[in-house]
Amino acid sequence: MRPSSSTSEPFAFLVAVGAVTERTGRVAWLQAMLDVEAALAESQAELDLIPADAAAQIKVACRADQFDVDAVFDAASLSGNPSVPLVDALRAAAGADAAPHVHAGATSQDVMDTATMLVAARCAEHVSGRLTHLASDLERLAADHASTAMVGRTLLQHALPTSFGAVASSWSDAVLAGVDALDCVALPVQLGGPVGDAISFGARAGEVTAGVARRLGLEVPPRPWHAQRTPVTQLAGAWGSVAGAAGGVATDIVLLASSDIAELHEVADGAGGSSSMAHKHNPVAAVSARAAAAQAPGLVATVLHAAGGHELQRAAGAWHAEWPALQSLLRCTGAAVEWLAASVERLVVDPDRMASNLDAANIPQEARRP
Amino acid sequence: MRPSSSTSEPFAFLVAVGAVTERTGRVAWLQAMLDVEAALAESQAELDLIPADAAAQIKVACRADQFDVDAVFDAASLSGNPSVPLVDALRAAAGADAAPHVHAGATSQDVMDTATMLVAARCAEHVSGRLTHLASDLERLAADHASTAMVGRTLLQHALPTSFGAVASSWSDAVLAGVDALDCVALPVQLGGPVGDAISFGARAGEVTAGVARRLGLEVPPRPWHAQRTPVTQLAGAWGSVAGAAGGVATDIVLLASSDIAELHEVADGAGGSSSMAHKHNPVAAVSARAAAAQAPGLVATVLHAAGGHELQRAAGAWHAEWPALQSLLRCTGAAVEWLAASVERLVVDPDRMASNLDAANIPQEARRP
Amino acid sequence: MRPSSSTSEPFAFLVAVGAVTERTGRVAWLQAMLDVEAALAESQAELDLIPADAAAQIKVACRADQFDVDAVFDAASLSGNPSVPLVDALRAAAGADAAPHVHAGATSQDVMDTATMLVAARCAEHVSGRLTHLASDLERLAADHASTAMVGRTLLQHALPTSFGAVASSWSDAVLAGVDALDCVALPVQLGGPVGDAISFGARAGEVTAGVARRLGLEVPPRPWHAQRTPVTQLAGAWGSVAGAAGGVATDIVLLASSDIAELHEVADGAGGSSSMAHKHNPVAAVSARAAAAQAPGLVATVLHAAGGHELQRAAGAWHAEWPALQSLLRCTGAAVEWLAASVERLVVDPDRMASNLDAANIPQEARRP
Amino acid sequence: MRPSSSTSEPFAFLVAVGAVTERTGRVAWLQAMLDVEAALAESQAELDLIPADAAAQIKVACRADQFDVDAVFDAASLSGNPSVPLVDALRAAAGADAAPHVHAGATSQDVMDTATMLVAARCAEHVSGRLTHLASDLERLAADHASTAMVGRTLLQHALPTSFGAVASSWSDAVLAGVDALDCVALPVQLGGPVGDAISFGARAGEVTAGVARRLGLEVPPRPWHAQRTPVTQLAGAWGSVAGAAGGVATDIVLLASSDIAELHEVADGAGGSSSMAHKHNPVAAVSARAAAAQAPGLVATVLHAAGGHELQRAAGAWHAEWPALQSLLRCTGAAVEWLAASVERLVVDPDRMASNLDAANIPQEARRP
Repeated sequence: MRPSSSTSEPFAFLVAVGAVTERTGRVAWLQAMLDVEAALAESQAELDLIPADAAAQIKVACRADQFDVDAVFDAASLSGNPSVPLVDALRAAAGADAAPHVHAGATSQDVMDTATMLVAARCAEHVSGRLTHLASDLERLAADHASTAMVGRTLLQHALPTSFGAVASSWSDAVLAGVDALDCVALPVQLGGPVGDAISFGARAGEVTAGVARRLGLEVPPRPWHAQRTPVTQLAGAWGSVAGAAGGVATDIVLLASSDIAELHEVADGAGGSSSMAHKHNPVAAVSARAAAAQAPGLVATVLHAAGGHELQRAAGAWHAEWPALQSLLRCTGAAVEWLAASVERLVVDPDRMASNLDAANIPQEARRP
Repeated sequence: MRPSSSTSEPFAFLVAVGAVTERTGRVAWLQAMLDVEAALAESQAELDLIPADAAAQIKVACRADQFDVDAVFDAASLSGNPSVPLVDALRAAAGADAAPHVHAGATSQDVMDTATMLVAARCAEHVSGRLTHLASDLERLAADHASTAMVGRTLLQHALPTSFGAVASSWSDAVLAGVDALDCVALPVQLGGPVGDAISFGARAGEVTAGVARRLGLEVPPRPWHAQRTPVTQLAGAWGSVAGAAGGVATDIVLLASSDIAELHEVADGAGGSSSMAHKHNPVAAVSARAAAAQAPGLVATVLHAAGGHELQRAAGAWHAEWPALQSLLRCTGAAVEWLAASVERLVVDPDRMASNLDAANIPQEARRP
Repeated sequence: MRPSSSTSEPFAFLVAVGAVTERTGRVAWLQAMLDVEAALAESQAELDLIPADAAAQIKVACRADQFDVDAVFDAASLSGNPSVPLVDALRAAAGADAAPHVHAGATSQDVMDTATMLVAARCAEHVSGRLTHLASDLERLAADHASTAMVGRTLLQHALPTSFGAVASSWSDAVLAGVDALDCVALPVQLGGPVGDAISFGARAGEVTAGVARRLGLEVPPRPWHAQRTPVTQLAGAWGSVAGAAGGVATDIVLLASSDIAELHEVADGAGGSSSMAHKHNPVAAVSARAAAAQAPGLVATVLHAAGGHELQRAAGAWHAEWPALQSLLRCTGAAVEWLAASVERLVVDPDRMASNLDAANIPQEARRP
Repeated sequence: MRPSSSTSEPFAFLVAVGAVTERTGRVAWLQAMLDVEAALAESQAELDLIPADAAAQIKVACRADQFDVDAVFDAASLSGNPSVPLVDALRAAAGADAAPHVHAGATSQDVMDTATMLVAARCAEHVSGRLTHLASDLERLAADHASTAMVGRTLLQHALPTSFGAVASSWSDAVLAGVDALDCVALPVQLGGPVGDAISFGARAGEVTAGVARRLGLEVPPRPWHAQRTPVTQLAGAWGSVAGAAGGVATDIVLLASSDIAELHEVADGAGGSSSMAHKHNPVAAVSARAAAAQAPGLVATVLHAAGGHELQRAAGAWHAEWPALQSLLRCTGAAVEWLAASVERLVVDPDRMASNLDAANIPQEARRP
């Protein structure tokens, strides 16, 4: 397996791979924004706040493939966010009767914030699936090597014997801790209207919010959170944890695959060559996983800084700063997970080398355990 | 109220205030490490793994005020962590009979990791208490001003009317989201022994771990997590979220207290003066809260990077890098919360100014709501 | 003027604008790598190390438009960097006679590191030009408003009178400090061969390096710097400074354009609208500049972390981690500068409002200066 | 040699060592602020702007040991910076005649910003000295081992033979690049008065600034830089580069000292022990250098973020956020350098092991060079 990329970035092979790219590119964001508009219209129609026919027409119009995606996002430079041009385009697409009921009571931030949660939910679902699959691969490896003795190394010094099974189990723990971290994140709808008090949605604002949440599979927040960004920072923290976990496991693989230890190898057709040394064989997947994971901490910091600088009812820059950082965070964390999964698929374990390294290890006999 | 400081750092007034300092300084860390050693001994004695007398003597000896705290931490430069000299000192303090049973089966990392969780738990309890109290102050403010109309500002532009009650409610939401973020963090015991497989604790390692967890009020992990740092990264992320929330509210206060808006003021004897302009009155508490909160994102990034670079059974630097960053994170986040609480205590609301600003606002009459 | 974007990223309008995108996209990187290969061949031919005909054929082949750019970068996932597939493609393009002389003595890192410096040099030239032009716009603004009195605000409190000319001058200083920061960065060639000792380039390695540097307009380093990354960190720091400077000026504009101060406005056809409030007019360019600038600090941290984790003769991940972070840093800093320039072009100054704000300011008469 | 610490922080052994602590603690900051006040008074007296007697009395009073240092810094919590209480205390110390001439024309920011540059200059002088000494140690090592062959490792794979001399030379390059980075930083005086236009210093403000710069060994800026923070961000970037360089060399040492490579060892009495494994010998100094260096990137990001959020004539929090981050950055970078120097002093090179590793290396005979 080899993660593939499909963007115009030069280093996409490191930071954008597999389904995560598909889900978080322009089309995925546009579809998420449209899904929010559709869910809003349907929820309002269900409560007789807008005509059912209008909601139906809006719903039909909310398909990203019916829009000029690039035009919408490029026009965002005029309004500062892509919601403004999207609403215009959606009104045109929904027809004259439905147009006045598009985006009713909503403001750009409602759409952007809720779409952010939706994109995050979809990415989390995908990445959690990959992590879960990876954990079962690792548990199988752990079972196969429960009694494969190897050197335990602390501070890179030979410490005491351990088993490769124990090591693979700890990798599985790391991977599953990532699944837990993503699971723990609350992803709430944000519907507050122009100044976040939900007054623009009328007396039944709570029911509208609940309807939107139900349709999108998101949570109902106690109140609009337009001006308090903890849902966004907690989301970023969890993805940062996943990247950290993936990077940590990849670090172990790179070390164990080093020529001086050589207890593991990545084996894959055509991968790992050098432009100058034919004899070398680099663990490219694990190396790429580390490189992708290393992008995450700085991106998390960007999101956290933005939260601390959010101004009043909607920030003048700190809100906008969240989007590219989150987008990059989803992509590079997803890439770290994909590359790690590729690395584990490629792994060849060398129990003989583990045994000979252990024999030769700087561990006194009395410290070796049965 | 004025947060106080008590360290030798020049800018302690910004990053170390109130009880958080007390709890996270050298004594607090030493006590936490001693609490881990005591809990370990008691748990082992309970299972008849070490003599009850030895455990009792160890328990008695585990009081930080009986140690030369500075000597322990200064000696850490020899071994790379303070656990090594502490164990030596504790063996001496516990007496010859108990000495062999001190730290039985444990390695430095067990003590450091579990003490980290304990310090974090104690800081979280303190900070959560402050946040909860602050939220009730804010809810009272919200109730008092439910019908105090003011300008809602998005991107710092006059948007639509809102109320100061709604603003204070959103601050309360932010503060309570911080409590939730801290509550969600799992703080597990870490007991793995030299290479993290818990073999050194014998067949009843699981029971020992459970006993330690029960005594310290920490969680029982599925397995030792010596080599996967998600408990640490999730902890850091949550504290980063709290700092972000505190910084965001403080940003609002600074803006609303600006001379050009002047809807709020911090009023406190002796505070807020200038070295050159007698007429100025700075909202020093909110400013300090922002400055403290702004330290957090970079520290979270440091912890996340360390996780991604953790090597094999114990990292050669990435593990050690967690400590000062986490310590600073607890302190600056705690300081941000204390300063924010001080700011809110000092707040004087000016409803007349809110009304006159709203009258003069750039909001068309038809957009103003009843 | 409106910065335009042309990538498939959803938030490209914030982080990739104008010529910076062109220069730093896939094609720009590929051309830079090809320029390195061509300069290497020509320098070696000049010293009679390879045949002149071969160098000429290589030179002719080194045009990005003759390559399948996407194929090269996608194949990078096999080798871990795009240099390996590029060398293969270049050998094919150069013809059988020249092929053995392509990339002679070089390793992937030589090409990647030197191309990084070249891309940075080209971006710096472009951005410095924009900054210089912007500074002259700001100096003109400063001259026009040398005696336009306004309120000076410290900690957002009215302090003492100043002039808009002084403010615009300080913005110009910030912008020119950015030019200086970029000018100060040394951008050296990196030619070390497989393990960085330049032995693969033979006895005249120093002359080869000097020839490459002369041809590319880069500096000659004292020795290959394959394993010490200060050229890269210094580069990142300087771009971070530029972003900080741009963000700081944009922050001032956003504040002075706030409805409560209203001393400045961004005026541009079609820009600044809201999806819910027709009366609002957002300073979209300054807001976007802030959002773009806010991406930079985290990216600088990523590059710095990579430097500290660089392993031996070429790092296993930390080297690769530099590329996407640097690429994003160049783009978001470039975008911050473009957006700031757009904001300044759109600025309308309101001296009457400055005067009336000053009249009404909380500044005692005796503190006002003539 | 063993770096020593002397603060109440638990992890001071990692982040505050040697002379850097002395120079950057409370006393060092207070003395720097006093040096600024003294230089200001003397410069003004030289120009007959204040009486010579007053300047002499102020100069005499400007000794940190005559002040209650803790009282000054603790009182900073009232005014938001330590300059306000210091000026009060200095006026009292200087006597009634001189008191009115203390801090003449200056504002808190002038003192804080210039003292920041002064502290940075003093720390840079100390750290550059250490780095220069370290580079000469490394060059000696390089000369001694110019022909000590060893395995070159790229991506941690055996690549080609190199020499330990070449490795030590590249370390020396990294260390000297750090010296260059610090040398390149301009450290200008900041004297702008209340709103940064220097009007409060009168017609000869430029001469006053030049006099202060001459006395303090700092640079004369073109204009006050109160509101544009590039001097601070460039400073932070350079220290970040030094930390990155130190961390990179320490990473190499940790790897070469790993049990599996074992080509280097840190040998020092009493250092490197384990709490559970007597046979282990950890390279504690290199590990500590890595841990200290790893603190830097996040701190640089904090300073860069603050620059981008600086508001108008003096920021309401972003300015204050610079201090603790810079202070920590100076300390941790200094600590990284001290620990690295300690590691190099402790190094024992094992040429036999290098030879046997090379013999056994996965490098084909034909790729091995004479």
